[in-house]
Amino acid sequence: MREISGGVCAPRGFRAGGIRCGIKASSRKRDLALIVSDRPCAAAGVFTTNRVQAASVIVSREHIAAGTLRAVIANSGNANACTGEEGLQAARRMAALTAERLSVPGGAVPAGQVAVASTGVIGVPLPAGAIERGIAGLFAALESSAEGHDAALEAIMTTDTRKKGGAAEIEIGGAAVRIGGMVKGSGMIHPNMATMLGFITTDADISRGMLDRALRRAVRRSFNRITVDGDSSTNDTVLVLANGEARNPPVETDGAGYEAFASALESFCAGLARAMARDGEGASRLMTVTVRGAAGEDDAEILAKSVASSSLVKAACHGADANWGRVLCALGYAGVPFDPGAVSVRFASPAGTVLVCEKGGPAAFSEEDAARVLSQEEVEILVDIGGGGGGAASVWGCDLTCDYVRINGDYRS
Amino acid sequence: MREISGGVCAPRGFRAGGIRCGIKASSRKRDLALIVSDRPCAAAGVFTTNRVQAASVIVSREHIAAGTLRAVIANSGNANACTGEEGLQAARRMAALTAERLSVPGGAVPAGQVAVASTGVIGVPLPAGAIERGIAGLFAALESSAEGHDAALEAIMTTDTRKKGGAAEIEIGGAAVRIGGMVKGSGMIHPNMATMLGFITTDADISRGMLDRALRRAVRRSFNRITVDGDSSTNDTVLVLANGEARNPPVETDGAGYEAFASALESFCAGLARAMARDGEGASRLMTVTVRGAAGEDDAEILAKSVASSSLVKAACHGADANWGRVLCALGYAGVPFDPGAVSVRFASPAGTVLVCEKGGPAAFSEEDAARVLSQEEVEILVDIGGGGGGAASVWGCDLTCDYVRINGDYRS
Repeated sequence: MREISGGVCAPRGFRAGGIRCGIKASSRKRDLALIVSDRPCAAAGVFTTNRVQAASVIVSREHIAAGTLRAVIANSGNANACTGEEGLQAARRMAALTAERLSVPGGAVPAGQVAVASTGVIGVPLPAGAIERGIAGLFAALESSAEGHDAALEAIMTTDTRKKGGAAEIEIGGAAVRIGGMVKGSGMIHPNMATMLGFITTDADISRGMLDRALRRAVRRSFNRITVDGDSSTNDTVLVLANGEARNPPVETDGAGYEAFASALESFCAGLARAMARDGEGASRLMTVTVRGAAGEDDAEILAKSVASSSLVKAACHGADANWGRVLCALGYAGVPFDPGAVSVRFASPAGTVLVCEKGGPAAFSEEDAARVLSQEEVEILVDIGGGGGGAASVWGCDLTCDYVRINGDYRS
Repeated sequence: MREISGGVCAPRGFRAGGIRCGIKASSRKRDLALIVSDRPCAAAGVFTTNRVQAASVIVSREHIAAGTLRAVIANSGNANACTGEEGLQAARRMAALTAERLSVPGGAVPAGQVAVASTGVIGVPLPAGAIERGIAGLFAALESSAEGHDAALEAIMTTDTRKKGGAAEIEIGGAAVRIGGMVKGSGMIHPNMATMLGFITTDADISRGMLDRALRRAVRRSFNRITVDGDSSTNDTVLVLANGEARNPPVETDGAGYEAFASALESFCAGLARAMARDGEGASRLMTVTVRGAAGEDDAEILAKSVASSSLVKAACHGADANWGRVLCALGYAGVPFDPGAVSVRFASPAGTVLVCEKGGPAAFSEEDAARVLSQEEVEILVDIGGGGGGAASVWGCDLTCDYVRINGDYRS
């Protein structure tokens, strides 16, 4: 897999753009994004598990059921969640207006081929008029370049401080296949999705069924393994659109072609997931928690998530304080059986590795060394649970800072 | 139930005291506490569910198995957790030394009649020498007065900023029965106990079995319904000692006597639990979340805990921001089925009540009114889940502040 430029526009046949239509209070920020494929795409989606679901999630779930998409329209600044029947109608209208503009004489695009996504404040009616007035300008802004990707990405960001997107190229059966993507998400981030939107494009020729399988595998090991604050949102959506322009031997069953695509999609999504954790609200450090020696991958994941989610571990990470007792404490309430007397814990970063806990008790270590290791921008907590099993998993999180509190203490104004 | 003074020394036949033995870095803070009953007590205890258990928890569990206690010795500044075999020996020695001093010619007190508790940093060897040297002074400091209670309470505090204790009197079968108690706990506070210690004394004459039942019921509806940061600690312990000095008709079966005692214990513990949430690390507000209309009490409790634990709800509470969408979001990922379109949410405080969400959508309300209501020291989030059921529960939490991050970013130094 080779990194390339262009984001969601890197795969052939995709255009993207973003404009300001007037949803966000700031007069400078873009808030309406569009990604369009020149031809119908095989599509798959993964959505929030929250019982309270945004109107956009309800509509996109319906639209993706047929498995074919032409476009994704998304707004930031308003989640269109807890907005009742009016919110549903507004989401449907966003899709319908987009489909209308995509239609050509003799080639009507049904509204069901447009997915809708929203992110922002919950419980405020969507300014449907602003979106409606903005759509003409949005179509005029479409570009098949990195600029188009950038503008669309800016238009889905809320408290994000970094642009999180990219593109990669792999080879399937002699054909160069490209994958591009963008994500937003910074707070309300927790395993099993987050206040995240993720849009992935690819020119792979792949059946809807295999695309769906590849997406679920990738999401499980990427976006479902990050945590910022333990809140799972009402709007989480990850979509992948595959338009087949790469003209690779079609991926329709298991085999080398599927494996190549699925593992590339997984690595690609893991990179975006790490970027989201690094950009967690108020975060000053990326914190990777890896658990090994568990009975299985599921156990390892549960244990790692418990550590990465602990407010006390996150606060200690912020203070570069080698408080490994909090790591053991968080393992202890994860709900997975293990022998506390067999656990070892290491802290690691580009500045080195320090063994802080051995057989469940204190290891002899230098506090200065540990503080230096933990003061880096990316730190790792490496746990060997001591069960001797082959189960391992990494989870990405971040430290807990005052800025998180500031950002979320007065989000709506 | 009538409030009285004296704390754990209010019930007849109890003495308490606290001294500084040198575990805490500060040269002014007390760190060793003792509560003694003049005669053997029926005793019951509830301990942490964390798989990693402090040495003191392991020892106290063993000692309480026989159901009779004479004393509780506790230290702060060191959790004696993740300290291996040495830690276990140190905890046993604390009990044995205390028992030795309680013994009189012809009346040896076995070590098994002394419970041990510790709170503080995890993974640092307990300074057993300091405790051993301190014990003579500790016994000399025992008093049967409010001063003894205060000194013992100070000696179990860590990041606590307020003294949390009290006493109450009820009548059982014509006899005045007293209950006294103290708790510590401020961070690592979560449903199913917390980094909390709670010691309750009573002069009720009650069998061990009925005392155990009353304690479990009280803890379920008090200490298990508070959350500060979602971390459950390695050291949580609540003990109740009943010495029978009130000479009430013995409580040995169900009936009016048991009911009077159990409901008094429950109210008493609920008061201490609220005080703990109010004193959550860095907290500026007590946040009570009440859910009604659920299918049962368990469902209501799960929903209320989900809201009270949400970092985003806690941060919004800190900012006095009426962001009710986060309340719906937290209800939605609680794992309990409900109809989002039937939910209503009110914010309340001594400054008034504001309906912010009706039938799952926005209610018309004044932002100024809501901000005034939420700016009080004690605020309530009142949720009617709309299921029409009789299940209701309240959970106590607090807001999330920068001070929480500061306190926990560098706890060990």
